[in-house]
Amino acid sequence: MKTVVWQSLSETQQEYVLQRPAITEGANISAIVSEVIDSVRQRGDDALLELTEKFDKVSPESIKVGTEEVNAAADRLSENMKQALQQAYDNIAIFHKAQKQKPLRVETQPGVVCEQVTRPINSVGLYIPGGSAPLPSTVLMLGVPAQIAGCRQIVLCSPPPIADEILYVAKLCGIDNIYNVGGAQAVAAMAYGTESVIKVDKIFGPGNAFVTEAKRQVSNDYRGAAIDMPAGPSEVLVIADSTAEPDFIAADLLSQAEHGPDSQVVLVTPEPSLAERVADAIQKQLAELARADIARQALGSSLIIVADTLMQCVSISNHYGPEHLIVQTRDPRSLVSQLDNAGSIFLGNWSPESVGDYASGTNHVLPTYGYTRTYSSLGLADFTKRMTVQELNADGLQQLAPTVVTMAEAEGLDAHKRAVTIRIEKLQAQQNRAVANKEVQ
Amino acid sequence: MKTVVWQSLSETQQEYVLQRPAITEGANISAIVSEVIDSVRQRGDDALLELTEKFDKVSPESIKVGTEEVNAAADRLSENMKQALQQAYDNIAIFHKAQKQKPLRVETQPGVVCEQVTRPINSVGLYIPGGSAPLPSTVLMLGVPAQIAGCRQIVLCSPPPIADEILYVAKLCGIDNIYNVGGAQAVAAMAYGTESVIKVDKIFGPGNAFVTEAKRQVSNDYRGAAIDMPAGPSEVLVIADSTAEPDFIAADLLSQAEHGPDSQVVLVTPEPSLAERVADAIQKQLAELARADIARQALGSSLIIVADTLMQCVSISNHYGPEHLIVQTRDPRSLVSQLDNAGSIFLGNWSPESVGDYASGTNHVLPTYGYTRTYSSLGLADFTKRMTVQELNADGLQQLAPTVVTMAEAEGLDAHKRAVTIRIEKLQAQQNRAVANKEVQ
Repeated sequence: MKTVVWQSLSETQQEYVLQRPAITEGANISAIVSEVIDSVRQRGDDALLELTEKFDKVSPESIKVGTEEVNAAADRLSENMKQALQQAYDNIAIFHKAQKQKPLRVETQPGVVCEQVTRPINSVGLYIPGGSAPLPSTVLMLGVPAQIAGCRQIVLCSPPPIADEILYVAKLCGIDNIYNVGGAQAVAAMAYGTESVIKVDKIFGPGNAFVTEAKRQVSNDYRGAAIDMPAGPSEVLVIADSTAEPDFIAADLLSQAEHGPDSQVVLVTPEPSLAERVADAIQKQLAELARADIARQALGSSLIIVADTLMQCVSISNHYGPEHLIVQTRDPRSLVSQLDNAGSIFLGNWSPESVGDYASGTNHVLPTYGYTRTYSSLGLADFTKRMTVQELNADGLQQLAPTVVTMAEAEGLDAHKRAVTIRIEKLQAQQNRAVANKEVQ
Repeated sequence: MKTVVWQSLSETQQEYVLQRPAITEGANISAIVSEVIDSVRQRGDDALLELTEKFDKVSPESIKVGTEEVNAAADRLSENMKQALQQAYDNIAIFHKAQKQKPLRVETQPGVVCEQVTRPINSVGLYIPGGSAPLPSTVLMLGVPAQIAGCRQIVLCSPPPIADEILYVAKLCGIDNIYNVGGAQAVAAMAYGTESVIKVDKIFGPGNAFVTEAKRQVSNDYRGAAIDMPAGPSEVLVIADSTAEPDFIAADLLSQAEHGPDSQVVLVTPEPSLAERVADAIQKQLAELARADIARQALGSSLIIVADTLMQCVSISNHYGPEHLIVQTRDPRSLVSQLDNAGSIFLGNWSPESVGDYASGTNHVLPTYGYTRTYSSLGLADFTKRMTVQELNADGLQQLAPTVVTMAEAEGLDAHKRAVTIRIEKLQAQQNRAVANKEVQ
């Protein structure tokens, strides 16, 4: 890890050190993915089976995973594992249930009622990567909010063979449609549907460069599917002062670094001696790590920044906009109102990032690569959409009519005006008739 | 308008009649836009001035609109117009203020606190199209929520000369940064910044095919900017029964049809005679419209569907997913809970679409072209982002540790586990010392 002193840098240098490494997407990734998508659209299940054999070197008995397999997976898991997954499920469910939106109803002026209602997205697709170790935590982070939102169809795709932990969590989340498909072909199958795979409205979940590119391509096609958010390498920024424990910070930085060689790891501190102690602690802990090689590569492009003040640390963090932000200072709570552009914030000595990755209740699907400026931590809202409703009574319309007429005239939209005046004329005729009737009586 | 009887159609035919016309994007639009973006990125203001002269045939004195010009515009407007814009502003402000999210705080288990906080997007860009008539209503729909969200920088671009109504509303919304730039070059300027134009984080607003393509391109570049939602032609679907006023329905359909030749207009009714009366009323009203030619073209590809029952009408609407949904039935309120996939819903005889377009309080920027399945009516949420915060105390971490450790082991993430165990060891050491001290005392 490189250490820099913030104030010694020019503005250009400051900008430069906070720049994330460019994402190099081989142009051929785009072409390969586009070909995969085409073949899934044209040949459906046949293409899926072929591509699964080609890329995953597996020929699953069927594309859809049967109920018996899901039940058998549960039987094979230890009670300890089931309890852990259940506790994580419970906490994530509590936090995401609390995000439910109450319908909104406002009378903006007498007789003009405006409402906002929320509906689940009908059909969602969850992508769970394969690889050397299963990722049941990702199933929880996507499946729990989908279930709580009330999405009618929840589809899960993962490269075969799908781990027992994943099948177990899928069952906890009430997911019936589980498919032995991974990679760009899984994204294509969910976006367009095949004989076996249900077409979905929106696709969620992380993946490698091919999955990311496939999500981008299908989300650019109106016949395809929407996606959760743009993807980038995982990252953490730690703000720490002299009260912080160097060992804890080192452990947190390493738990980010072990994600992959492209992980970004940054420490910002006003305390030069802390910077040194953390660097030492990292070297010590690194020696004991299983994934030390990966972590070492990630640390190669990582950074310790020595700032002048704690407020300068905050401002550096806000400028960088980290996915994960850990604050280990004397009074971390007091900084929250100043913090901006972060996916998830971890306060104090007893809140390591890994609790949020797994089980505290917050979602671990977060905007990264600077997308924290505009995108949100994944939440219940991403599995729903908001519609507005309005209802005017005759009085309300009469009161609002002159404004609508004036504005429609200014915008040269004659029929917009007529839709109001035709109603007002009708109302006036009714009122005139009522007056006339009264006079007759 | 073509009339079809739903039950007489095969499933394939039903699917076919609800299909929207394909959006034909000349391949050269993409190339032209990409060239415009490149030249704005390379040559900044110089490119903007050049492109404005080329496309808008105007050479504004400066790219940025000065305060005096804004004030002069206000002086030129009639009191009547100002009052109308103010009433619209007030209603839109009331409805969007009501959308403010309270911070969320949940203790998912003892000692584990999870929170959700909302922050404004720092810098937003509003695109307001030019054309034959000004669109102050669009400034309101974008500017009011940006102002209420608390976005620190609000940028507005519109092709010169910018109408007085637009400048006046911009001032109402507290927008200081107004630029005489339109088209793809405006989107490029806001996404990347120039000497004059401030770079923004997210771009909002409607536009022609070039603007839409430019938004798509900059949103696919991580150095660019996020965008509000995908764009498509405007559309309305009316559900009406025998109690509806054919004249009102005709006026509503026409007010959509006059937007553009590609507007989509659909009436769904269980009442064959209503279908006929609406078709007649449309012919009568069409004769009197200024934009009759445009409306006639839109009606050419539009549709009256005669369904069996009111519930079938609802299900057709949910399948189509209209941007605007007008419900003129005996008891429209009773249908709301069944309605899905609509941008904005207008209930009853006295709620024409044009009130929502201008002044009732709801937003008129809505998902279209079937994007209602996954996208929301524009609202305050689109100008903010949600971050999560978590804080565990020592007890909370100790209770949660076994779960995190078990899951990290399953996922093969050693350092994730260590970030927890290193803290637990420290806590245990502290506790042991405390016990020892007590024994000594």
